[in-house]
Amino acid sequence: MHIQPIRTRPITAQDRDLLAILDEHVPALEEREILAVTSKIVALCQGRAVPMAEADGAQLVQQEADLFLPPGPGRHPVYLTIKGNTLMPGAGVDESNTGGYLVPWPQAPQETANQLRAYLQQRFGRRRVGVLITDSRPLPLRWGVTGFAVAHSGFLALRDYRGRGDLFGRPLRMTQANVADALAAAAVLVMGEGDEQTPLARIRDLPFVTFQERDPTPEELAALTIDPADDLYAPLLTAVPWQRGQGGSR
Amino acid sequence: MHIQPIRTRPITAQDRDLLAILDEHVPALEEREILAVTSKIVALCQGRAVPMAEADGAQLVQQEADLFLPPGPGRHPVYLTIKGNTLMPGAGVDESNTGGYLVPWPQAPQETANQLRAYLQQRFGRRRVGVLITDSRPLPLRWGVTGFAVAHSGFLALRDYRGRGDLFGRPLRMTQANVADALAAAAVLVMGEGDEQTPLARIRDLPFVTFQERDPTPEELAALTIDPADDLYAPLLTAVPWQRGQGGSR
Repeated sequence: MHIQPIRTRPITAQDRDLLAILDEHVPALEEREILAVTSKIVALCQGRAVPMAEADGAQLVQQEADLFLPPGPGRHPVYLTIKGNTLMPGAGVDESNTGGYLVPWPQAPQETANQLRAYLQQRFGRRRVGVLITDSRPLPLRWGVTGFAVAHSGFLALRDYRGRGDLFGRPLRMTQANVADALAAAAVLVMGEGDEQTPLARIRDLPFVTFQERDPTPEELAALTIDPADDLYAPLLTAVPWQRGQGGSR
Repeated sequence: MHIQPIRTRPITAQDRDLLAILDEHVPALEEREILAVTSKIVALCQGRAVPMAEADGAQLVQQEADLFLPPGPGRHPVYLTIKGNTLMPGAGVDESNTGGYLVPWPQAPQETANQLRAYLQQRFGRRRVGVLITDSRPLPLRWGVTGFAVAHSGFLALRDYRGRGDLFGRPLRMTQANVADALAAAAVLVMGEGDEQTPLARIRDLPFVTFQERDPTPEELAALTIDPADDLYAPLLTAVPWQRGQGGSR
């Protein structure tokens, strides 16, 4: 696997044309390559940035979250939230690298991923290319943030080992690998979290990825969602009084 | 960043010499490269495998866990555990790719990472090389497993953006990136979870990694640990009646 970050001009809250940014900065994409795109520049180009002077951060988080838990006394001053099958603080609302704005997740990130993939297929005359929209979050008991997949298109998010058997022919207990999240973790590490100005990355040499020449089907996407009550971590996830947010950005 | 898996002969519960395996299968390591090693082969070579016929899985998990929560009625039949700053099911006890054995984490994985790094430095005459011991786990609300770092040596686990400012000079809210976990997620993806027989990987082209010619200091390692009550996710982590395990493998 090889990941190459792409340096761009600064993308700001005034930008509106993500395809033009790709035209400007992505000179080529080969068969079986995936383009990683930070959710930040997708949201900026959608005009989603809210000037901090006008923003009510807590209200914005409640609007964006599917479920939220307000900060409690003696706790870290963050909202814990669940949004788009993702457990994270602050529903993905971000204020870094935005020049005085709060930036929520992109609107309809899955549609954006599909559109970008179709555009790149057409522009470069490729059949099998992927798009991965990334963000980062802190994980329980770990310092620092790790990248994860907000949306993907053109490849299978999971690699299925079911029925395949392990090295000794036994059925595998942990039967799937989360390809999309691992690619996002790697791409975000390479793209950076600071002033690197590299919100795009090309990922190639991916023999373990199953590419698809189409959008993920509704069934494939539904199979990625888990109700907190059905999750392996349900005892933790259902132990707190979540409040229902407005689930923006769908 | 470039990650290249290394195919090995099958490593079994009868293996005892991890250095000989490295001698056999790692032909070179350049300056500023990191060798990823699955925790599975480290534990196998330590003689940690327990034949499944003799094993009490639940007892083994309780021995291995720092904290554990037994499965409840109507829940997934797994122990949730915390071990080595990691939230995961089953305290890392694994039964895949082991030929009829249960395999817990390696004993003293940090010491092993340090020893392997020192050995590789000496063998290849390098100053700055890293070692990363990896495992994988499911994450809350995500299907499939994702790799993470069990132990690291020869480089900084976190990349610190504090005081650096973002692209627009603002202080960054999320101020550190978890380099070790992201490298592990990427390496585990490339190494695979099934019968690939690639438990090693070389990671190079890492301009964003700070290498060190020494073991992590006790202070650096202590700075990576978080008490569940102090964690960002404390409301979830402290909401269940954890029982104290025996915290094996230290």
